[in-house]
Amino acid sequence: MYQIGFDIGGTDIKAGIVNDDMKIVGSTVFPFPKGQPCDCVISAMAARVKELSGRTGIAADEFKSIGMATAGSVNIEKGMIINAHNLGFHNAPIVREMSKHFPGMPVNLANDADAAAIAELRGGVFLGKKTAVLLTLGTGVGGGIIINGRLFTGGQGHGNELGHMTIMQGGPLCTCGNRGCIESLCAATWLLERGKESASKNPKGLIYEKCAGKIDEITAKVVVDSAKEKDPDASGIFNAYLDSLSSALASIAVLLDPEVIALGGGISLAGDFLFEPLRELVKGKSFFKIYHEILPAKYGNTAGIIGAAMLSKEY
Amino acid sequence: MYQIGFDIGGTDIKAGIVNDDMKIVGSTVFPFPKGQPCDCVISAMAARVKELSGRTGIAADEFKSIGMATAGSVNIEKGMIINAHNLGFHNAPIVREMSKHFPGMPVNLANDADAAAIAELRGGVFLGKKTAVLLTLGTGVGGGIIINGRLFTGGQGHGNELGHMTIMQGGPLCTCGNRGCIESLCAATWLLERGKESASKNPKGLIYEKCAGKIDEITAKVVVDSAKEKDPDASGIFNAYLDSLSSALASIAVLLDPEVIALGGGISLAGDFLFEPLRELVKGKSFFKIYHEILPAKYGNTAGIIGAAMLSKEY
Repeated sequence: MYQIGFDIGGTDIKAGIVNDDMKIVGSTVFPFPKGQPCDCVISAMAARVKELSGRTGIAADEFKSIGMATAGSVNIEKGMIINAHNLGFHNAPIVREMSKHFPGMPVNLANDADAAAIAELRGGVFLGKKTAVLLTLGTGVGGGIIINGRLFTGGQGHGNELGHMTIMQGGPLCTCGNRGCIESLCAATWLLERGKESASKNPKGLIYEKCAGKIDEITAKVVVDSAKEKDPDASGIFNAYLDSLSSALASIAVLLDPEVIALGGGISLAGDFLFEPLRELVKGKSFFKIYHEILPAKYGNTAGIIGAAMLSKEY
Repeated sequence: MYQIGFDIGGTDIKAGIVNDDMKIVGSTVFPFPKGQPCDCVISAMAARVKELSGRTGIAADEFKSIGMATAGSVNIEKGMIINAHNLGFHNAPIVREMSKHFPGMPVNLANDADAAAIAELRGGVFLGKKTAVLLTLGTGVGGGIIINGRLFTGGQGHGNELGHMTIMQGGPLCTCGNRGCIESLCAATWLLERGKESASKNPKGLIYEKCAGKIDEITAKVVVDSAKEKDPDASGIFNAYLDSLSSALASIAVLLDPEVIALGGGISLAGDFLFEPLRELVKGKSFFKIYHEILPAKYGNTAGIIGAAMLSKEY
């Protein structure tokens, strides 16, 4: 049997057919239809399922369920997106709308970071673990929490907002209006902004050189790559980033004492250059020097599709 | 029936007989016998049970269980104190030792902050709640976490160390060796140290006046009381404290989304003067402005005894 998984982001919607081995056997990506009402967006999504069905030769009656992972906050019981500023959706009944296109088929919903944590739990680095935390380090910082082998979506069902824990009171302004949140210091955005500042000040530095002087095109990867090559400016930025990220991970570790903390998002592709010093720093900042595994997430760009598809399994 | 509860601290050991209505029907306090080995300390504790039995006229066969709440880290499954620096206990098998004195009687163990959370869950401000967090603001900062209506003692069983979450990276040095932990900024100790500094600098201030110039005798309460009377120095200190405490609570709130956060310890006796501005600040610092109740804990000094006694109920 097969499950359909959708990953709904502010730029693109990804759709995939996932088999029982958690492999994507067919997928498609299309731009998020900005400004359209919920029912029209869902119609566009439903049309892609039929397209995928035709392309893969998998008949509609072989689909067991549909899952949707979405940016923003969700109410799972009501099947609604509560607030997703990137999508322009507020109190949007997306489960009900999708069900109209597939009568009788189970339709599930989760926040995208939660869906990614489910993917790791069912087939990734959380397999067999009871308590684990996923942090996705991208434009912002999201997170999914597994407690007692199940997704924990907050005591009141509001979801978690890991990215908005304070790690530097009075620190840099965050998108949420507070200061010193994890997101304001550990998102890829922080690295690239510091990279731009550095390149503006030092046109002889490696960051400037790597972007050929196009400062607006600097990415977090340019900064990390420059640090790997021991550029002093980039190394300073990267070390400050490691300091913040290790504070974030240590805070989560002393609160939840998880078996594993996994990192997703582009930054997590930096490999041992990131993970080796990070593990040492987190250990140093964790009370009692408790050991928690710190690993790259298994599922990258496909975490949303696969996690959404896996929502059909009770969690 | 009755349960025995012990609250083992570095200064005193408190013992009490608790009835099924969670009332203490007889209690005693005695100094912690410093420097003695575990078996001798437990013998001294067992002797107090017999004394209490004699004094209250409650026969030993009416005791259903014994519970011990202790400072430091514990391994509940092994019935051991792993590390309690204040007590000088390391890998101390206190459940086994206590069982020798009361063969056949269930003997339970918990960290003291966890026991206090259990007391709140069974008969205090967590009654009927599924997710709740207790912070005890004393010499240090401890915490107990309830998730899904049960005590959460960490994913790997190490317990939580709420007090050692980072809220001000690079901030003041904490007893644990890190910087900017909740404990380094929100313990009563922080208030009294700032009070001492202030009184040393300003002998015309209210803090100095209230302690009659005996700066070493300044307590956190003196600082809070001076702030209540609008002394500018004390108000500045208290507002900075509120800023830190609200960051700590907001961090916990965005991670766990609890129904209630309760505060225990001496500071929590400051009443509305503390809680009213604190609620506003936490709301302002919580992503999505989610509402979490912030309340004083019901059980004060007796939380340890009562929580320890309640450990007999499955948690």
